[in-house]
Amino acid sequence: MKKIKSALISVSNKKNLKPILQTLKKFKIEIISSGGTFKKIKELGFKSKEISEYTKFPEMLDGRVKTLHPMIHAGILSDRKKTSHKNQLKKYNFKEIDLVIVNFYPFQEIVKNFSKKKRIIENIDIGGPSMVRGAAKNYKNVAVITSVDQYNDLINELNFNKGSTSEVFRERLCQEAFIETGYYDSVISNYFLGISKNNFPSKKLIYGNKIDDLRYGENPHQIAGIYAIGLSNQKIQQLHGKKLSYNNYNDLYSALEISKSLPKNVGCVIVKHANPCGVSINKDNFQSFKLALKCDPVSAFGGIVSCNFKINEKLANELNKIFLEIVVATGFSKKALKILKKKKNLRIIDSSKLDNTDFFDMKSNFNTLLIQSNDSKIFKNKDFKVVSKTKPGKDTMKNLIFAFNICRFVKSNAIVLTRNFSTIGIGAGQPSRVDSCKIAIEKMQTFQKITNKDEVIAASDAFFPFVDGLEKLVMSGVSAVIQPSGSIRDKEIIRFANKLGIVLVFSKTRHFKH
Amino acid sequence: MKKIKSALISVSNKKNLKPILQTLKKFKIEIISSGGTFKKIKELGFKSKEISEYTKFPEMLDGRVKTLHPMIHAGILSDRKKTSHKNQLKKYNFKEIDLVIVNFYPFQEIVKNFSKKKRIIENIDIGGPSMVRGAAKNYKNVAVITSVDQYNDLINELNFNKGSTSEVFRERLCQEAFIETGYYDSVISNYFLGISKNNFPSKKLIYGNKIDDLRYGENPHQIAGIYAIGLSNQKIQQLHGKKLSYNNYNDLYSALEISKSLPKNVGCVIVKHANPCGVSINKDNFQSFKLALKCDPVSAFGGIVSCNFKINEKLANELNKIFLEIVVATGFSKKALKILKKKKNLRIIDSSKLDNTDFFDMKSNFNTLLIQSNDSKIFKNKDFKVVSKTKPGKDTMKNLIFAFNICRFVKSNAIVLTRNFSTIGIGAGQPSRVDSCKIAIEKMQTFQKITNKDEVIAASDAFFPFVDGLEKLVMSGVSAVIQPSGSIRDKEIIRFANKLGIVLVFSKTRHFKH
Repeated sequence: MKKIKSALISVSNKKNLKPILQTLKKFKIEIISSGGTFKKIKELGFKSKEISEYTKFPEMLDGRVKTLHPMIHAGILSDRKKTSHKNQLKKYNFKEIDLVIVNFYPFQEIVKNFSKKKRIIENIDIGGPSMVRGAAKNYKNVAVITSVDQYNDLINELNFNKGSTSEVFRERLCQEAFIETGYYDSVISNYFLGISKNNFPSKKLIYGNKIDDLRYGENPHQIAGIYAIGLSNQKIQQLHGKKLSYNNYNDLYSALEISKSLPKNVGCVIVKHANPCGVSINKDNFQSFKLALKCDPVSAFGGIVSCNFKINEKLANELNKIFLEIVVATGFSKKALKILKKKKNLRIIDSSKLDNTDFFDMKSNFNTLLIQSNDSKIFKNKDFKVVSKTKPGKDTMKNLIFAFNICRFVKSNAIVLTRNFSTIGIGAGQPSRVDSCKIAIEKMQTFQKITNKDEVIAASDAFFPFVDGLEKLVMSGVSAVIQPSGSIRDKEIIRFANKLGIVLVFSKTRHFKH
Repeated sequence: MKKIKSALISVSNKKNLKPILQTLKKFKIEIISSGGTFKKIKELGFKSKEISEYTKFPEMLDGRVKTLHPMIHAGILSDRKKTSHKNQLKKYNFKEIDLVIVNFYPFQEIVKNFSKKKRIIENIDIGGPSMVRGAAKNYKNVAVITSVDQYNDLINELNFNKGSTSEVFRERLCQEAFIETGYYDSVISNYFLGISKNNFPSKKLIYGNKIDDLRYGENPHQIAGIYAIGLSNQKIQQLHGKKLSYNNYNDLYSALEISKSLPKNVGCVIVKHANPCGVSINKDNFQSFKLALKCDPVSAFGGIVSCNFKINEKLANELNKIFLEIVVATGFSKKALKILKKKKNLRIIDSSKLDNTDFFDMKSNFNTLLIQSNDSKIFKNKDFKVVSKTKPGKDTMKNLIFAFNICRFVKSNAIVLTRNFSTIGIGAGQPSRVDSCKIAIEKMQTFQKITNKDEVIAASDAFFPFVDGLEKLVMSGVSAVIQPSGSIRDKEIIRFANKLGIVLVFSKTRHFKH
């Protein structure tokens, strides 16, 4: 237990000081404070000594130097158990400082709200972190408060211990202080990295704010949490239903990634186990869902439906006919929401505030972190080259690009079959491409009626290494194929396509996803 | 351009100071230095003024307070463009400090090598980061060096600009300085979080050191890099072949995760697209590989072979018969290595130094970070409950647990078929469980001869929602099944197993993996 006799207060955020000051007064704790804080304390009707008066040294350089003084830092850093330290303080008439209450210039908020570099840099706090770090290092003797959120805990601690703090409490504050300073400088470094566009510095700092503790991870025996990275906020809004689980988030993000890639206000995606099991774009939103569902109505059970349009009453009634974990959309009509809310557990999510600021993708393994830029390439016509003698019409070309776009969101190896802007067969996650072909074909044959009038399109996320996969596709009715080139058998594959008279288009880019 | 007239040097790591001192001397730059650094400079035959002499204030509290003085900080922080700042410095007889060379107490190395808390905490640097942060904030006027690695750059810059530094250079140093301080405090906070076992603090700091820039990400149009997280080093050692790509790493980690879960010195795993396509354990290492390969020799093409044993000459010759991207093992005989090295591009990796310190798994999506503890549960017999009338013998039970263990490393939904500790069919990554059953069965029927004497075992990573999947498995020869319970149809499934006379075992834990 350490009795607190003196406190230093220097806060940028001056909220909620009153109850703290009342408690310090109650335990007769002397207060030292810096310029603005001194004024605020006076305003609130409490006494404190201004730092410049305390150190007998003025604030300098427009406040850039005020607390960076040996009297302050020796007062914070001295080891109370060492006689030599005690004597040195005495010699210079320095006093021990037992409590440091500091919060920093709001660098993060300034970066979010202002763009002028000078103003941003002026908001890098120097004195504050120095005191906080010193106090945290000396937590055996000193308590350090770095956030308004900790005020209540401090008040309770002081009341409970009659003006003292416990070491357990101070050690926790120390931990939180170093998180605060580490976080603060991570934000600052990231600001400068942003300016220099240095994405892969030799040391990488990633920082996040907790959105939620999750009930468990991918499985009940794993613990989990979710954080908002950097300066971002969680951009999705849950309107109803049970808390999102780890797997819900994972699936939801897969669904949203596809949704945002589709033309606005027409796309519907159904996801299960992070893979799409049905995607469709259709001006008639109701049809968009019906066609997505038809791709694999069995797998859709317990899945996620994601619409990049506003859900209306008619669709809400249709959605309620099947068991879903999540319905996410860029809006809901009042009536639709009321209908969907009848399902007590159904998670209903509004994604209309979701933007597209996520440029990097990270995953960890064996204590290493793989970081890559997202596969967010926007396709243009010139990215594709028709290599077959049979040329695709405009509509066929559009359908080919639609299929290829879906394909990149399916786990590799991926094969996607489509008809008229709806998936009708998805083969995902196979080590062998021909197996993905088989799975996609079987889906199509199970759930669709294919007539001779239908134009069935196939997309592959990477090149066909052999003719076999292509052959199976064509034999099952596919008449146009899109795939990245790059196989040593490309020529053979073009000859094969020409022999069968199908359309074959090469894309410039491969789209593995694992 | 800023002419440098004075420099402050205060370094914990005193390597390579000589060339810096020569350069500073050449441009007649005055040096101020702190205790230990002062001695070192003197030893090297150069002049400098000790800080306590400079400030006319002694080092205090065993060196805890030495640079935390207004004379130092005003000298660093003053805005050279402001007359008021200039006048204030003059008034107190303070001088501008144009260059700060500081590196910190080696907190990270101390944590790695020592366990005594007092010693560790004493190595939290307070004065160093204060100066560095001040100098970095004032990069318009001051250059800040935080690492021995930057000395050459500084020397070149000063020589090139005849004793001056450019703003571009100083801004880069500022960025690196804030990375350094952010990193330093992240390490410190993580040390305290480790003590309190707080895995999900409200603010999360993740920090890493770059292992490598990668040629590209999952696809050529994505940029990528790989970092070692926290205090870890890269634990794998590449002995030969092309640089590892993003997908190589991703596949490699999948393979190693399975390898480390198998009994030591007997396991062979083949991975493609982050999914296993063959796993076997066998005392005869050669057989172990052959049996793993036999599970799906088509998919193994271009895959990764991972052995948790030392590869010998015989196996090396066998491995060379197929095209592989990577061979990884816990060692290679000299002859084996020579044989494998004949393949110029083959990446050969030694994983014998790989340990098991990775407790958390992270992935990012839409600017959020999902963090969970790894699914590293070690299975015990009591985790499993035999629910069928037919009871498994000891060997069958071992085989069931082997199959279930592999199953958790296969992307969900996962079905794994095994015979005598070798996989013979793997169905991965399907939104519908019955589809995974079909894929696994088809693999088995394609590549294996199953006789009545064979005991075919099936494992499922999550419960069977219906009888259909189970039925397909039994019809294809499966006589023992292991799966997590939890379906509302569990009873029906037990009845079904009993009707067919198969072994059915429930596990307590589910093992989704996406």
